Amino acid sequence: MAAMTTPTALIAPRWILTMADGAGPLENHAVVLAGDRIQAVLPLPEAQALHPGLPCTALPTHAVMPGLVNTHTHAAMTLMRGLADDLPLMRWLEDHIWPAERTHATAEFVKDGTTLAIAESLLGGVTCLNDMYFFPEEAAAAALETGMRMALGIIVIEFPTRYASDPQDYLDRGLAMRDRHKHDARLSFCLAPHAPYTVSDPTFERVAMLAEQLDLPIHLHLHETEAEIQQSVAQYGCRPIERLSRLGFLGPRLMAVHAVHLLEEEIRSLAHFGCTMVHCPSSNLKLASGFAPVGELLAAGVNVALGTDGAASNNRLDMFEEMRLAAFLAKATTGDAAALPAEAALRMATICGARALGLDDRIGSLEPGKQADIIAVDLDAIDLVPCYHPASHLVYAAGRRDVSHVWIGGEPLVRNGELVRLHVDQLRSRVQGWHTQLFA
Amino acid sequence: MAAMTTPTALIAPRWILTMADGAGPLENHAVVLAGDRIQAVLPLPEAQALHPGLPCTALPTHAVMPGLVNTHTHAAMTLMRGLADDLPLMRWLEDHIWPAERTHATAEFVKDGTTLAIAESLLGGVTCLNDMYFFPEEAAAAALETGMRMALGIIVIEFPTRYASDPQDYLDRGLAMRDRHKHDARLSFCLAPHAPYTVSDPTFERVAMLAEQLDLPIHLHLHETEAEIQQSVAQYGCRPIERLSRLGFLGPRLMAVHAVHLLEEEIRSLAHFGCTMVHCPSSNLKLASGFAPVGELLAAGVNVALGTDGAASNNRLDMFEEMRLAAFLAKATTGDAAALPAEAALRMATICGARALGLDDRIGSLEPGKQADIIAVDLDAIDLVPCYHPASHLVYAAGRRDVSHVWIGGEPLVRNGELVRLHVDQLRSRVQGWHTQLFA
Repeated sequence: MAAMTTPTALIAPRWILTMADGAGPLENHAVVLAGDRIQAVLPLPEAQALHPGLPCTALPTHAVMPGLVNTHTHAAMTLMRGLADDLPLMRWLEDHIWPAERTHATAEFVKDGTTLAIAESLLGGVTCLNDMYFFPEEAAAAALETGMRMALGIIVIEFPTRYASDPQDYLDRGLAMRDRHKHDARLSFCLAPHAPYTVSDPTFERVAMLAEQLDLPIHLHLHETEAEIQQSVAQYGCRPIERLSRLGFLGPRLMAVHAVHLLEEEIRSLAHFGCTMVHCPSSNLKLASGFAPVGELLAAGVNVALGTDGAASNNRLDMFEEMRLAAFLAKATTGDAAALPAEAALRMATICGARALGLDDRIGSLEPGKQADIIAVDLDAIDLVPCYHPASHLVYAAGRRDVSHVWIGGEPLVRNGELVRLHVDQLRSRVQGWHTQLFA
Repeated sequence: MAAMTTPTALIAPRWILTMADGAGPLENHAVVLAGDRIQAVLPLPEAQALHPGLPCTALPTHAVMPGLVNTHTHAAMTLMRGLADDLPLMRWLEDHIWPAERTHATAEFVKDGTTLAIAESLLGGVTCLNDMYFFPEEAAAAALETGMRMALGIIVIEFPTRYASDPQDYLDRGLAMRDRHKHDARLSFCLAPHAPYTVSDPTFERVAMLAEQLDLPIHLHLHETEAEIQQSVAQYGCRPIERLSRLGFLGPRLMAVHAVHLLEEEIRSLAHFGCTMVHCPSSNLKLASGFAPVGELLAAGVNVALGTDGAASNNRLDMFEEMRLAAFLAKATTGDAAALPAEAALRMATICGARALGLDDRIGSLEPGKQADIIAVDLDAIDLVPCYHPASHLVYAAGRRDVSHVWIGGEPLVRNGELVRLHVDQLRSRVQGWHTQLFA
């Protein structure tokens, strides 16, 4: 489909990777923008002949591709980046992260932390965040202020926090946030029950019903550690995936985040029901959760998206790292260097994430009619040359600091490596304030 | 020991990580340089009082540490960066890398490729390369022109190449190169028999003798793949490490590169004989070689250094990536998030590499009398704040593009992220020439 609006600008890079099915890198082509959308991807001479005089961003040494979709994060946790590292999971959570959250995770913390996450994300070529954290209305405010595209989690967890008192309160607040923002073009919503070990059956039942009624994706930590599985067997007499299956959770709406520990039949089941698995390789390694069976999931036909997790367990929101690591780990765990080639890692970080969020009709590839969520990566730095294959370079050689331009909905948010809307110095001084408080 | 020379300059950063045994990050301190050496590391007020008027590089948001030691690379292969990816090892070697080398790996190729590797390395905070490639005299020339510190491999391999005709020819050329350059302060030398599957017993015997006579380290690929081990069992009736043990190779001089596939008794043996294991995590994953048992090697007391391998199997010469990945993999393979903490990864990338090369009396830590091989990493970028612990940040959050300053032997080679001696545009145009030839 060609959008019938008036073209407004051209982007003319060295290479275009559209991430449309079966398309290889295009050379000597241009992306034609029409307001917030992509009107066409055309050979450059044709684009210039059709649209003479249109403003053109020439990017002669760059690869242009869809913006990256970070399909699992806790954005505000950037303020706890590196607060506690090299610790076993439960000591990390119980002695450091949870106490810090009890004291500090207020509405203001979430607003500032999410803004920091957005700054980092935009500079690193991420144009959509799938977030799960407390005070999602503050994350929504940060997204609206900065221009970020964001899927906001309607979080629910069994225990009280500074944000909400009980499951009903969590859901009420989250649904009210959705009602307030459901017409904001760059915001979307997920139900975000935290995890099988923090959510009861009655709450899960209510979430399943809401997902159906409101047609929302479900964002859920699942099978992250062996301990989670053992606890479920002890408490519920079955593994979490079986419990969720009984509760009617398996389906195309489900984003199973982490999914590190899976039986063969669970892989088949995720595939059969059309679930998404969200792979967070850095976090899985750093917290010693293990190696997710991504090769097997892909072979079974599961939609695999990519996420960074929060900055407290990564410690960056860097989708270039996740792409590289996902490709590397799939090769080493399967013993096959051809497993998860660069192109597949790029798809995981773009169109597969969009599909998970139910947004693949709007973002995830550079195709006519889709939102102009576009990034440019300069492949001409002296530590990146020579470049024989741009897809391989984007995954194996380039990094987030090579992102030069970012557009969301056609709006330039990063230009020549600089944030356009965000005031970095103001943000840094607010972060410094939190640093002082949390370090005390 | 305090060097008794005249102080020439101060470096005054936010944090200093000396990598001296047991030292934590120092704040409000300065490094005092005296020509090519470190004279002292002192509290800043004391340094200023002792040396008023000395030129001072103030780095208020930076961590300063010893330059990184890349203990295994094939520098010139930067020209084949991304030439062939996502392929099984033997197809990669036989269909792509070896044919490209047969046609293109000339003296000129090695000079340009090594210069490119040096540019990338310096910008990424690497101040010492342990190289193994053909035409090492060209690598030596590149090092001398650029100011790089380099351990040059006296390579020997059983089959003829464009560089040499037979093992004796390889050794003669390499030893002549060493004679020519043995008084160059920034060059050192290793014997570099390629691998057990490409070197015969008589050649190994000659190498062992030379190592003893000339007191040189031995740089050798070892136990990289299961196939290598099976081939050795078939051909020699034993695994490569046992074969080398019989040939008298095990000892503090041996750098066993990769060492992915090890039996428990082989780990004990490497520890007992004081060998170094050079861990190349990116390469091991990308080529699907496997997961080296680094946790077990460290527990056994083996000196573990870090390397990038060549850019054709990585695809970067980025020691920040290797540190992060080494820490991550050790955690995930042992199931212990406390395994290989950030400080240990920093030691692997500095003092442990220096020890492997027999250079730990000269480089690898910031201590009085040692060479001033120093890097500064700016931890103030908006995607790095807040910073609670600089060691953790250097490994988990920062990257090569955050390196702002590099000194080798006291000489500034990178200043504010720019190469001082090297002409980037000239180099890029030479690289472009090779790109055209190799892509044809």
